[in-house]
Amino acid sequence: MKLGTLKNGTRDGKLVVVSRDLRRAVHARPIVSTMQDAIENWAEVELPLRALYDALNAGTVPNAFDFDPVAAAAPLPRAYQWCDGSAFLNHGRLMEKAFGIAPVSDFETVPLMYQGASDDFLGPRDDVPLPSEAHGIDFEGEYAILVDDVPMGCAAGQAASHIKLLLQVNDVSLRAFTPVEMKKGFGFLHAKPSSSFAPVAVTPDELGSAWREGRVHLPLNVRWNGEWFGHPNGGEMNFSFPQLIAHAAATRRLRAGTVIGSGTVSNADPRVGSACIAERRALELLEQGKPLTGFMRFGDTVRMEVLDASGRGVFGAIDQTVVPALP
Amino acid sequence: MKLGTLKNGTRDGKLVVVSRDLRRAVHARPIVSTMQDAIENWAEVELPLRALYDALNAGTVPNAFDFDPVAAAAPLPRAYQWCDGSAFLNHGRLMEKAFGIAPVSDFETVPLMYQGASDDFLGPRDDVPLPSEAHGIDFEGEYAILVDDVPMGCAAGQAASHIKLLLQVNDVSLRAFTPVEMKKGFGFLHAKPSSSFAPVAVTPDELGSAWREGRVHLPLNVRWNGEWFGHPNGGEMNFSFPQLIAHAAATRRLRAGTVIGSGTVSNADPRVGSACIAERRALELLEQGKPLTGFMRFGDTVRMEVLDASGRGVFGAIDQTVVPALP
Repeated sequence: MKLGTLKNGTRDGKLVVVSRDLRRAVHARPIVSTMQDAIENWAEVELPLRALYDALNAGTVPNAFDFDPVAAAAPLPRAYQWCDGSAFLNHGRLMEKAFGIAPVSDFETVPLMYQGASDDFLGPRDDVPLPSEAHGIDFEGEYAILVDDVPMGCAAGQAASHIKLLLQVNDVSLRAFTPVEMKKGFGFLHAKPSSSFAPVAVTPDELGSAWREGRVHLPLNVRWNGEWFGHPNGGEMNFSFPQLIAHAAATRRLRAGTVIGSGTVSNADPRVGSACIAERRALELLEQGKPLTGFMRFGDTVRMEVLDASGRGVFGAIDQTVVPALP
Repeated sequence: MKLGTLKNGTRDGKLVVVSRDLRRAVHARPIVSTMQDAIENWAEVELPLRALYDALNAGTVPNAFDFDPVAAAAPLPRAYQWCDGSAFLNHGRLMEKAFGIAPVSDFETVPLMYQGASDDFLGPRDDVPLPSEAHGIDFEGEYAILVDDVPMGCAAGQAASHIKLLLQVNDVSLRAFTPVEMKKGFGFLHAKPSSSFAPVAVTPDELGSAWREGRVHLPLNVRWNGEWFGHPNGGEMNFSFPQLIAHAAATRRLRAGTVIGSGTVSNADPRVGSACIAERRALELLEQGKPLTGFMRFGDTVRMEVLDASGRGVFGAIDQTVVPALP
């Protein structure tokens, strides 16, 4: 099943069921009005929503309409929690090596994760307003999950059942602040402005065998200003999403609607490219002695899209332009 | 004006107007149902709520009832954002000195702030369930603010008008994780379980001259297992709340309902005591060569209360017991 949220002038938008081919939609309203309501009442709404989804795909829904990703907000336009992991160790190893970041001793056994801002997620085609090009504007292509209520101390073995929907994210980052904020130990604040989300959230079954072992085994295609930048595969995630849930829930319960991210998708094979500029710069530094690629400029675009084995879009595309924020 | 939220089985509870003496309450429902709705629509609801507050204080509200802090949730039971500063530099300096934390170069000019979890705030008399006494269970007495929509790049000089309500917080901390998570640079995750809030949020005018220069100039009285622990004054905050807003909004807008905390209230005069155990331990280490005070044990209580110059309760009391979380 695929679910999206259309902008309607409210902060939460209105929930729609979107067809498998991402072309048609129907209001979920008779069943549930918003994504937050849906995730809080998943046990009651899942089956009716799936029935509507089946009818939409069969072309038998009378009040269906064309789905316009430009009119889409993030599937969950604001969340009560966003915990972003760094579950692709290849990314962390490269950053460590290239920029001399002190290695973390339990790097391979305990996931790195930061608490991110979730009050203002951007839609898939929204401009990304930022204060300055001097801040090292970067994109980060990620996968994420949306969970229902998770009890404190939930073990990884019990965590998979809490994953209700999968998401695709552009975790916009300002690299000039990253080392400064990491050094202070309080985590990222200026370095992590609003994140953006692909048009639809999908239930794990939608991916077929590409969803296994708690990972999305599909390449994330990233294009910067129309040019190929990378297509790393989510299957190389060193910690699974259930492991990330268990990590986040170690000392507190997670309430329904919590979003948990994978961190930048990153593969050991450099030929697949990267899902963020910082990683390409790290590779350049290691191979050629200095970073050659600059960060994003105002007017630059980034497109991130995931296709299934048959070449069909899964989440719809993130396609955004970075623009100056008005003073 | 004083506003609280009573538990009613929903995740957001129901908003009530509470009398100045904290004894009586009335449902805000005819005007607005939840705190989140109130802060999003502050311009429309403020005056009608104030009229109801005045009538409640005058004893002319027919459907008023006794306000029971045990039935109170946090004034905002879940928030889309919680940014917690560390605005009392005395606290940071002590921790640096005692525990050999590397000093931050711009410590005195740029506020330290972390992104915290906001999906599950606890009420003032709720038990605090935690997984283990071995994690170094600590309380942290703080002040906080609730803001409406803040634009990106909001200057400190423009930020005061966004402060709609003041709050009092117990930012529960697990000290065993603090140095480990600080070293990793990704900020606090296991170290910061759910925070708890005093029964009511108050408009700044409620404090009279004790609210000035963007600070709460009142002592925060902390008792641990019934014994005095400290009464540091919020007036010694090195960064004002408007400065903390400006810091949080530097690279993104803040959406209505964002909560921003002061960090542990801490004063230079050691005779006023502390608002967290870690600080007392730091003082013991510096003065007597080792920390003498242990952290909280299951069954321990902490009480935090703010009285005005006439000895009347401002926010109502936080009074909580730490208990083992069920597996």
